[in-house]
Amino acid sequence: MILQEYMNTCRKRVDEQLKQVLPESSIISLKLAEAMTYSVFNGGKRVRPLLVYAANKTLGGQSHYADPVACAVELVHAYSLVHDDLPAMDDDDLRRGKPTCHKAFNEATAILAGDALQTLAFEALSDPYHFPDALLSDSSRLALLRELSVASGHSGMCGGQSMDLNSVGQALNQQQLQLMHNHKTGALIRASVIMGALSTGHVSDQQLEALTTYANAIGLAFQVQDDILDVTADTETLGKQQGADDALHKPTYVSLMGLEEAKQFAENLCQEAVSALSLFDDQATPLRQLADYIVHRSH
Amino acid sequence: MILQEYMNTCRKRVDEQLKQVLPESSIISLKLAEAMTYSVFNGGKRVRPLLVYAANKTLGGQSHYADPVACAVELVHAYSLVHDDLPAMDDDDLRRGKPTCHKAFNEATAILAGDALQTLAFEALSDPYHFPDALLSDSSRLALLRELSVASGHSGMCGGQSMDLNSVGQALNQQQLQLMHNHKTGALIRASVIMGALSTGHVSDQQLEALTTYANAIGLAFQVQDDILDVTADTETLGKQQGADDALHKPTYVSLMGLEEAKQFAENLCQEAVSALSLFDDQATPLRQLADYIVHRSH
Repeated sequence: MILQEYMNTCRKRVDEQLKQVLPESSIISLKLAEAMTYSVFNGGKRVRPLLVYAANKTLGGQSHYADPVACAVELVHAYSLVHDDLPAMDDDDLRRGKPTCHKAFNEATAILAGDALQTLAFEALSDPYHFPDALLSDSSRLALLRELSVASGHSGMCGGQSMDLNSVGQALNQQQLQLMHNHKTGALIRASVIMGALSTGHVSDQQLEALTTYANAIGLAFQVQDDILDVTADTETLGKQQGADDALHKPTYVSLMGLEEAKQFAENLCQEAVSALSLFDDQATPLRQLADYIVHRSH
Repeated sequence: MILQEYMNTCRKRVDEQLKQVLPESSIISLKLAEAMTYSVFNGGKRVRPLLVYAANKTLGGQSHYADPVACAVELVHAYSLVHDDLPAMDDDDLRRGKPTCHKAFNEATAILAGDALQTLAFEALSDPYHFPDALLSDSSRLALLRELSVASGHSGMCGGQSMDLNSVGQALNQQQLQLMHNHKTGALIRASVIMGALSTGHVSDQQLEALTTYANAIGLAFQVQDDILDVTADTETLGKQQGADDALHKPTYVSLMGLEEAKQFAENLCQEAVSALSLFDDQATPLRQLADYIVHRSH
């Protein structure tokens, strides 16, 4: 299996789903609907939906059960980017080479678009329309909703983002940096894997534990590699200002460990992730290849 | 029954619940936890939780089923106020006489606190801990989650807020103004009543229809009365700058209909709301008295 093909398939699949749940038009506010769609269809790689589909596949699940879940995690991710880019937060003008939402629209619309994208994630999971054959039990759907809300709120993504903002200019040690990333980006990556598994309707505690270890390792690896790319890639490849973290005096794995040690750390995490999947058969190939991709990507 | 006593009971009840779901401390970000709590405990009247409890009572339900629902609607309301007050939105320094969240903390923290309060609303409804005796079915709980997400997202509250922002300085007619308020504030008020009814686990279509008519009427009456108070009450009673809407050239019912006609309109809506409750017995007394209170409150 070539990962790139699987990634393309998943991206097309989730994009189709996202088009269905996003408002096409609106008698209330066309601008809000447009800002939401603009922010979701901005050339994102759909890594989190891919994790959802790949975890579902690992347990031999059916992809259409994973569709609303893939949508929901991508909507939460999209909302977090819109708000992270705001002037009061990271103040970014570009996101993947295109104007950020508040630049393309305005700040108030960007705040509301982020808000409504978060809401839409919960709507996608609570709408019975997206679970038509009722083969996924109500209790499994509640578990999905709970997982997503815990992962994205104050004890997950939002908490991590707040810790990140409060740490600018501070000398965090590696443990604190890890705690921050484990929440800011790690929580949603972990939730994507776990929710993909839950979307099969059958997952053992042992399987969940293995997938959690995998998700923690790739979540951290993803961040370490981001920090590496921030100093090694040029602005065009990255789609954002090279050295942006350094300019903000944000602590990074590279500033903390040095470039070479950070690269080795990322490699070790990749191996840890793959080892965690030893109890699964060939259906776990996309998850295995993804661990490798995260550490060796160039943007 | 004296409404004030019932309101006090409900307020104490929901405040107790809110204390339980809000983060008391945090190893990730204490500032975020503090900003969330600050924004929820700011002297709010808890009108939406009251609607939840009163609708539950109207159908002879048990209050403890309504607890997480009351929490959830208040958390959504609190998040919307935090974001509405931001400089890019209404740019308010005071909320009920106290510094707004971004003034007491900072803008980035206020954005995140709003985000995390929204997430917490969905967490409260999806957490099995809050529905311990499992007497409310999973399917009823999913219906609650769906109701809240639809009411607060792009086709509800967020959409209305966006329409409101885009209408500043524009000459909206009464139909457009009504459409805007029906979403901006009406959607969550309607959801509070409907979710209160759903929290009993048993509600007929006829009962839902009557409660929806009631909720639409009081939602609109609430807004008309707000517009009236904006020109008649002084700043101290109101807890915000008197004439604030006028200063922003926002269209209001008073600017559109004149003060006397707006007062009559509010009275008519109050009567319409009470009439809609004719199929219910004395258990609906709080809902009936509340309709009266909304139109005759002084702040």
